[in-house]
Amino acid sequence: MKTAELPSWNDGPARQAIVDFVARVTDESGADYVRPAERIAVFDNDGTLWCEQPMQVQVFFLADRLQDLASLDPGMRERQPFKAFLAHDFKTLHGLGKPAVMELFAATHAGMADEEFDEIARAWFAIARHPKFKRPYTELVYRPQVELLEYLRNSGFKTFIVSGGGIDLIRAFAEDAYGIPPEQVIGTSAKVRFELHDDRPVLMKLGELNSFDDREAKPQNIRLHIGRRPILAFGNSDGDLAMMRYTLAGPGARLALLLHHDDPQREVAYDRDFKLSPLRDALDNADRYGITRVSMQHDWKEVFAA
Amino acid sequence: MKTAELPSWNDGPARQAIVDFVARVTDESGADYVRPAERIAVFDNDGTLWCEQPMQVQVFFLADRLQDLASLDPGMRERQPFKAFLAHDFKTLHGLGKPAVMELFAATHAGMADEEFDEIARAWFAIARHPKFKRPYTELVYRPQVELLEYLRNSGFKTFIVSGGGIDLIRAFAEDAYGIPPEQVIGTSAKVRFELHDDRPVLMKLGELNSFDDREAKPQNIRLHIGRRPILAFGNSDGDLAMMRYTLAGPGARLALLLHHDDPQREVAYDRDFKLSPLRDALDNADRYGITRVSMQHDWKEVFAA
Repeated sequence: MKTAELPSWNDGPARQAIVDFVARVTDESGADYVRPAERIAVFDNDGTLWCEQPMQVQVFFLADRLQDLASLDPGMRERQPFKAFLAHDFKTLHGLGKPAVMELFAATHAGMADEEFDEIARAWFAIARHPKFKRPYTELVYRPQVELLEYLRNSGFKTFIVSGGGIDLIRAFAEDAYGIPPEQVIGTSAKVRFELHDDRPVLMKLGELNSFDDREAKPQNIRLHIGRRPILAFGNSDGDLAMMRYTLAGPGARLALLLHHDDPQREVAYDRDFKLSPLRDALDNADRYGITRVSMQHDWKEVFAA
Repeated sequence: MKTAELPSWNDGPARQAIVDFVARVTDESGADYVRPAERIAVFDNDGTLWCEQPMQVQVFFLADRLQDLASLDPGMRERQPFKAFLAHDFKTLHGLGKPAVMELFAATHAGMADEEFDEIARAWFAIARHPKFKRPYTELVYRPQVELLEYLRNSGFKTFIVSGGGIDLIRAFAEDAYGIPPEQVIGTSAKVRFELHDDRPVLMKLGELNSFDDREAKPQNIRLHIGRRPILAFGNSDGDLAMMRYTLAGPGARLALLLHHDDPQREVAYDRDFKLSPLRDALDNADRYGITRVSMQHDWKEVFAA
């Protein structure tokens, strides 16, 4: 590889594992050669490609969207589960359970045509700012990962996102931020319904869950969308473990990487006790599973884009 | 375009419509320019890219697979719905209804790991022959369509299959036959389940339907898998109409094409009364919907590969 590649990665075991792996699968004369069509790389998004602290971007989007809706329909402030969420009364919200969460998603992500949602999401990304870093969320993508995605594509890989986040929200920014087009984004999805509006076909986003793309659902959705076992997987939590282990279990050269957030100076430090995406099994058993650990603090020269 | 392109298409309105459309969307100085990332083309498979007569290839595969299974378990020949299918007693089979069809599919397409099915399907394609044409099914792909797929890709398009056929069966031959990789194949799918076999992750194909990819489900699955409205759609039956109309309803230049099987000499002639994929609404209302008709007899110099 050219020394100019992966400039934000420090020399160390993680960078070396990546470079060695790519050299092995692209060497046409080697035993581990993989033809380009089979060079499939899958990446989790929240906490792997961009910041997921203090909350996943999805939740900030939901909150802002609910404020917008409440300003048009003030009665929402008195109706549950909206009242609890708008008042940050998470104890009450927790008591309302899963149906309440689905209702929050339905109100903020559904009931409109697919392309209308896309416009709303793009408009939000253009103005929203992260509460701590005071920057657009799309600037909080990790620079070393953007370099890695490009390095892989330059090495003949096809790069995919496989995220527990909402598929349509990710599609609204992933092409600009990561160079990953919508058809290479897999995520949590709601059902859609084909309808004719004045004889014009549209797809309406419904409030009903189609797939919650986490844990075992990740390899299951990889099968549905990609139809081929990836040879590289990158995640940051136990929610990515099934996808990483599925990737590693194929024949030939394989690489699974786990990002550890151990960098309170530049980002944050969390793992086992972060409720939104706990990291316990993967961290404790990385060696047994054959997973390569990546330390944000030690392996990355820079965290965010300049 | 170079005159060498689309050599199996006769000069005529269909070929002209294709060439004009591609010229418009690729002309960077024109009003209808579409950047490459948005040049999405979707094709039905059965009867659009290859022969679906006298039965869809899926059914031949199912029949051969059932014979193989019955030779291992002769008791199957006495159990319904297998008995009726193996005896070509379609009247009894029809009476057994939809659950019987699901059971036939479950027995022949499920109960194994995804990659085992892929091997079975590839082995079958290598030896199976079409009953009328006495050639491998993969040689019964339409030569003008293979040229069209290549022409579109050479013009910066990304080509997808959106089929009512089984997604995994199509994926087993589409890369070789059409140059379309598994991740660009959408089809009817069963659910899969992540399992650990001796601590090794596999995806088991289940007998439960995930999505029957026909009619309104086609644009719905286009949304799930591609996330972007196509600009070109090609089909051959009313089952493709929702996808074609969804494609045409976007802004800018759009093209939808409908193949009419009117060639009893070289292939077959059928439309309204073919039960497996009737063509009525699309044929009668093509002009109103803005769909361009393609006549196999008049628009194609050759039908099959040499």
